Amino acid sequence: MTGADVYRNAVVIDGLNVSNWDSPAVYGSLRNGGVSAINATIATWEGFEQTMDAAAAWGARFDRHGDSITRVETVEDVLAAKREGRTGIILGFQNASPIENRLDRLALFHGLGVRIIQVTYHERNLLGNGCYERRDDGLSSFGIDAVREMNRLGILIDLSHVGPRTTMETIEVSEKPVACTHANSKGYYDVPRNKALDAVKLLAEKGGVVGATCITSFLRTGPRSTLADYVDAIDDLVQHAGIDHVGIGTDFTQDQPESFWLYIAAQQGTKYPASFTDPGRRWKVNDPTLYPAGLQTPDDLPMLAGALLDRGYTAEDTAKLLGGNWLRLFRDVWLA
Amino acid sequence: MTGADVYRNAVVIDGLNVSNWDSPAVYGSLRNGGVSAINATIATWEGFEQTMDAAAAWGARFDRHGDSITRVETVEDVLAAKREGRTGIILGFQNASPIENRLDRLALFHGLGVRIIQVTYHERNLLGNGCYERRDDGLSSFGIDAVREMNRLGILIDLSHVGPRTTMETIEVSEKPVACTHANSKGYYDVPRNKALDAVKLLAEKGGVVGATCITSFLRTGPRSTLADYVDAIDDLVQHAGIDHVGIGTDFTQDQPESFWLYIAAQQGTKYPASFTDPGRRWKVNDPTLYPAGLQTPDDLPMLAGALLDRGYTAEDTAKLLGGNWLRLFRDVWLA
Repeated sequence: MTGADVYRNAVVIDGLNVSNWDSPAVYGSLRNGGVSAINATIATWEGFEQTMDAAAAWGARFDRHGDSITRVETVEDVLAAKREGRTGIILGFQNASPIENRLDRLALFHGLGVRIIQVTYHERNLLGNGCYERRDDGLSSFGIDAVREMNRLGILIDLSHVGPRTTMETIEVSEKPVACTHANSKGYYDVPRNKALDAVKLLAEKGGVVGATCITSFLRTGPRSTLADYVDAIDDLVQHAGIDHVGIGTDFTQDQPESFWLYIAAQQGTKYPASFTDPGRRWKVNDPTLYPAGLQTPDDLPMLAGALLDRGYTAEDTAKLLGGNWLRLFRDVWLA
Repeated sequence: MTGADVYRNAVVIDGLNVSNWDSPAVYGSLRNGGVSAINATIATWEGFEQTMDAAAAWGARFDRHGDSITRVETVEDVLAAKREGRTGIILGFQNASPIENRLDRLALFHGLGVRIIQVTYHERNLLGNGCYERRDDGLSSFGIDAVREMNRLGILIDLSHVGPRTTMETIEVSEKPVACTHANSKGYYDVPRNKALDAVKLLAEKGGVVGATCITSFLRTGPRSTLADYVDAIDDLVQHAGIDHVGIGTDFTQDQPESFWLYIAAQQGTKYPASFTDPGRRWKVNDPTLYPAGLQTPDDLPMLAGALLDRGYTAEDTAKLLGGNWLRLFRDVWLA
């Protein structure tokens, strides 16, 4: 089979996309790229009310872009999106900040379709610590209860931006497999945003999935990276986690304005320092060096299938990496 | 001089009072007890909007109870309250939670008269960890910036309910003296809510004040405590901190309903477990065993002067303990 054949048959799932949802081009790229489903970020630093507004805004988007996207709340919804040639939108948080201090808001957001929640983003919140925090003492009492409640509800827990101790403790405490929707390993490239090998291994042992990210700040080849360099990062995760525990998590940020970069890189989302995700980097809208040459937007994702086949992966394994493993994890964690 | 003489001349300041501000009897007790000023808690677990409402509610109280109370924002306001025979109300938080993730809200609340803010309450918040949290990794990056901003604005930092490492680090980072408005020492009675001796000593060295609390859960003599037992707790602090660094911080909770106890003892203010401040204790409204016999409400505070004189304190030192030390600290920290 050619890469095009494998890709056409695969359920393609992107573990993280945080694009500008008000840009119509974003939906065209997802359709053009034949993406079956994405974890669409609707909160990074936001609190309860802002996130409720962000969730509400999707109603109009599903109406306006109904030829390109459809709402996903179940595994069957993902499969239906694939059959219909649309991209399934999984609403996700990159921070538990929207629940503020109320555990019962997890059920409230689940009721609105949120299926993936990251424990914390970059820094400290009420649950635990992020990967750029000064120190990490692991989950709080509230954090442990939040993990249990997400397990009970069937919300997939994400640890991509989470600190080392909070990451390990969440994997240990969670009764369901967990994810890093968009991160590479520190074995491949040792920066704070990539995950320690002990975390990658334990997460995999317990049935989880790590989605390799292609943001060049987290690829060891940096701004000059190509699609082949991204395959290196995937390869590395397969070595440590195994072929059944790796997916893709591009972290595409299509059409995001400069204000987005200042916001996500700011301390607790409100103070505007130089970005600590990549100090000194000057963020630009659709900067071509932020993603590998040959993998700039979802339009380019079909090329990944051929690159994986060229690297020696079988058609079956390539399909697992493109989305099969995410689909299995969703089936294991979501209640439907 | 008799105790009555010393008390009548003293500026009497209570480092913490968290009574039911909707109970008119509370204001009568403050006046009857001749209290010059109190740190009046308006937030424990609350967020921004709830705390704005709580601050706003004081407008009507100052109108309704103007014969008993007056607003305090400066040292001169405290002295004026003493001259006028009214009780000065210093608005204070027991948790930085009302600022949520916005440092500029510190200036906003300062503008509304808030002069004392505790870093965190019982558990974790965005700044640091509380004394009942699972672990304590100290101040976050946001917490360090918040300390600096409170220093800049002239807001007194309170560490009573704060975890051990966050306590030490705040004392170290703060450029102004800090307070424990209501706590005893672990040397006197080793429970999580009392402070380690190294913290008491360093806080005193840097010019701060510890207000001894008379809640019997934090007195080693427990529910059968008397006024003399409270003097023991004060004595202990004087041994470790020195006569210039100790005050009173009763933590009176006059007329608070049972719902208050459930709220303050709940995890992050929303989950209702058994109280972790004193497990197994059944909280009752105005429980006479919660405070020492002879020190039930502010009405009884004048008796403390005689008890301190009887213990061998001079009139001058008794006046320091009753409020003189708090007044000096306010002068050192507040900008007016």
